[in-house]
Amino acid sequence: MALVFRRWASSTPSKAHLHKPLHENSFPIGFKLTGIHVGVKKNKELLDLGVVLSTSQHPTSAAACFTRNAFKAAPVIVSDNVLARNGGRARGFVVNSGCANAVTGKQGLEDAWAMVKHTTALLPSQAAKEDTEHDALVMSTGVIGQNLPISKIVAGIRRAADSLGSDFAAWERAAKAFMTTDTFPKLRSRVFSINGVEYRLAGMDKGAGMIHPDMGPLSTIPSSPRQLHATLLGCILTDAAVSPRSLQSALTYAVDRSFNSISVDGDMSTNDTIIVLANGAAAPIRDGRAHEIDEETDRDSYEIFKKELTDFAVDLAQLVVRDGEGATKFVAVKVQGAPNYKDAHAIASKISTSALVKTALYGEDANWGRILAATGSVPLSSSPNSEEVPVINPSKVSVTFVPSDGTAELPVLVNGEPENVDEDRAKQILSMEDINIVVDLGLGGDGEATYWTCDFSYEYVRINGDYRS
Amino acid sequence: MALVFRRWASSTPSKAHLHKPLHENSFPIGFKLTGIHVGVKKNKELLDLGVVLSTSQHPTSAAACFTRNAFKAAPVIVSDNVLARNGGRARGFVVNSGCANAVTGKQGLEDAWAMVKHTTALLPSQAAKEDTEHDALVMSTGVIGQNLPISKIVAGIRRAADSLGSDFAAWERAAKAFMTTDTFPKLRSRVFSINGVEYRLAGMDKGAGMIHPDMGPLSTIPSSPRQLHATLLGCILTDAAVSPRSLQSALTYAVDRSFNSISVDGDMSTNDTIIVLANGAAAPIRDGRAHEIDEETDRDSYEIFKKELTDFAVDLAQLVVRDGEGATKFVAVKVQGAPNYKDAHAIASKISTSALVKTALYGEDANWGRILAATGSVPLSSSPNSEEVPVINPSKVSVTFVPSDGTAELPVLVNGEPENVDEDRAKQILSMEDINIVVDLGLGGDGEATYWTCDFSYEYVRINGDYRS
Repeated sequence: MALVFRRWASSTPSKAHLHKPLHENSFPIGFKLTGIHVGVKKNKELLDLGVVLSTSQHPTSAAACFTRNAFKAAPVIVSDNVLARNGGRARGFVVNSGCANAVTGKQGLEDAWAMVKHTTALLPSQAAKEDTEHDALVMSTGVIGQNLPISKIVAGIRRAADSLGSDFAAWERAAKAFMTTDTFPKLRSRVFSINGVEYRLAGMDKGAGMIHPDMGPLSTIPSSPRQLHATLLGCILTDAAVSPRSLQSALTYAVDRSFNSISVDGDMSTNDTIIVLANGAAAPIRDGRAHEIDEETDRDSYEIFKKELTDFAVDLAQLVVRDGEGATKFVAVKVQGAPNYKDAHAIASKISTSALVKTALYGEDANWGRILAATGSVPLSSSPNSEEVPVINPSKVSVTFVPSDGTAELPVLVNGEPENVDEDRAKQILSMEDINIVVDLGLGGDGEATYWTCDFSYEYVRINGDYRS
Repeated sequence: MALVFRRWASSTPSKAHLHKPLHENSFPIGFKLTGIHVGVKKNKELLDLGVVLSTSQHPTSAAACFTRNAFKAAPVIVSDNVLARNGGRARGFVVNSGCANAVTGKQGLEDAWAMVKHTTALLPSQAAKEDTEHDALVMSTGVIGQNLPISKIVAGIRRAADSLGSDFAAWERAAKAFMTTDTFPKLRSRVFSINGVEYRLAGMDKGAGMIHPDMGPLSTIPSSPRQLHATLLGCILTDAAVSPRSLQSALTYAVDRSFNSISVDGDMSTNDTIIVLANGAAAPIRDGRAHEIDEETDRDSYEIFKKELTDFAVDLAQLVVRDGEGATKFVAVKVQGAPNYKDAHAIASKISTSALVKTALYGEDANWGRILAATGSVPLSSSPNSEEVPVINPSKVSVTFVPSDGTAELPVLVNGEPENVDEDRAKQILSMEDINIVVDLGLGGDGEATYWTCDFSYEYVRINGDYRS
């Protein structure tokens, strides 16, 4: 392979389709938003502050999953605090890019609270509200250990009121405000219905490095150590009405199967946050208020909502991997035949973060030996019902490359025996942008998990050897 | 930083000092060895088969640590089997490079046994021996999933008898036979004494990729799952006499603190093996036989031997990191103030394998935020005496860069507060080839561990995107 730097830019054909135009009527109603430049980033053409507000008359439910890193950034601590104070309600959020407000001590917390307060001030007042000052969440991404230029940010939040909108351009501006090393804004929407009522989902997120999230709710699981990190941010907005507790449990479920199953570089950040807001603007009215979907009182509706949210989260998570720093390949690693989901997920994660597997993918080399070595380096967990720890049996393991164009699969290892691989065919499959790898442990269990990752390129080294300068 | 490929070659000044000339009288007596080309590698100028034999009249003790990967290569299974059969005795070994004989099924095992048998045939016969056919160990390194060209190898082992020697040239030939992507042969020796008796240690090893070993004895720990991997190989030879069980326990201790604390790319191999042979050629004679050091009957001598072996193993392990694929930096990561050794080791390992930390080191960027993020992503283990899981307290963590030239340390984070870092001074420290990072968790525990790693460069991607072609 030549020493060519294959770079994805938003102008290249392969990137263009990722930022596809969306129909305005597929966006949730009852939200106003914008993205502007306030000066966190040096380049004045780049947006660095986004504001999203619910204009619905109904209560807006909010839920979030935060990083499990021990070094939680100020915005994570503050957003978690707002959610806990307000019982899972919040009517908007503010996001800045360029500075993570992480490892910034007391000043960092004050700055994050100021962002919450000034964003809340943009919301229409609500009479019955107890805490009228803190009704918004906050997210930050960028360099760690630097304080925010808070006066610029506060002035920016005030100024944001002038450009709030709900057309496609407004959505796109907000999506752009999330970006750091991302090469394109990440914005998706979809329409679904429950019991004949049509709802909409829209989502924005960003990567593109320090991506190996492990997120969960903080306040609602007090035994979980408080942790945060810095580079996966995302939001999902819907005009459905969902009770706060059900919104949180649906999000936790969705995040485990989407954002917690992606890796760009194996590094967990201090700021990772996914927020969901459900403003009820499209919900049926019962007894004068929006009828909220709830997992206990209306299980069927909840299951539909959870499935839609999960599928949508997978779409958003995959976009992050597709735009992974230096990525030239989008790779799905499926592990099956494992004793349980946890083992399958751990092995898929290990394969997805292996530097040797990822450089081989960059080199379009069907080096399944590296996949096996990564697989075999993960100790399996013991079963809760027995003291016996299951062991991978090399003679039962199979590895298959599944082409993304629907043509025939290419088994490279069957029951531990290497196949006589047609190298030309292997090269053909690996030259595609999308690659699927299936590892079957053959242990007879129903443990199955899919991880999404990208390759490791020169460009990744360039971006990260050179990030701050 | 410019897009320059900084490559280490054995001819560059920075590499030359690593392959320093050694005095002949520092090599252990009673060994004959060689390295030749037999045709596993295509290039005829490269050596690919090494043979080491003990010529001592005394029993030679042997011990080994093998990879814990689930996919154990044939030579690992066979060497473990020989050690178990012979009660920790073996008088030599054979090593080949270019083909790992891993994932090669029944044929692979037959080939490894053939290597053992033909190497044993080179040894002087011993009358009292029960198994006269299997008195040697075997190691292989190279590509996974291909069968060895066994007839070439067997012919080569026979031919090796012609060039066996004990001069420096013979040691160097043997060291060269280990090499794959290594840029220089790795050979070290040292002299030590116990109770006035002088002994010698010599060692050879190889990397340079798929280096993140976790090795232990196999047969002697039946509950440990059998595993192996492919790219760290090494041997230590001594003319001391040590009982088999004490040789194994000293090696296990030494490997935990040396080879099991290095990383080049975070990938554990299927063949990793460290062998030690103690032939007793320099040992004092008591009751007509070499007096063996033993941990139960002569604790003091054993402790001296163990310490010498450990220090020597650290030297050999560091050589592998220094020659890590694409490496331009040699980095020591020390974690202290942790609740216990296990937590300190896990955090040092995570920092040492972080792609973001390693690319920052390549870019000579004092990006301590990435070090913190890696630190915070490791969950601490619970104490065996309490159900409480300790948690990293961000306000107690300190990070310091310690220059390798003995000048003043550079604290970048003190008790969770970022220092006002002099960027010029940081650049100066990071421009050195050797870099030391100290992370103090401040948790008051005596858990402390050091890991050795290298940076992540363009060259790493080139080597591994292009390995098989």
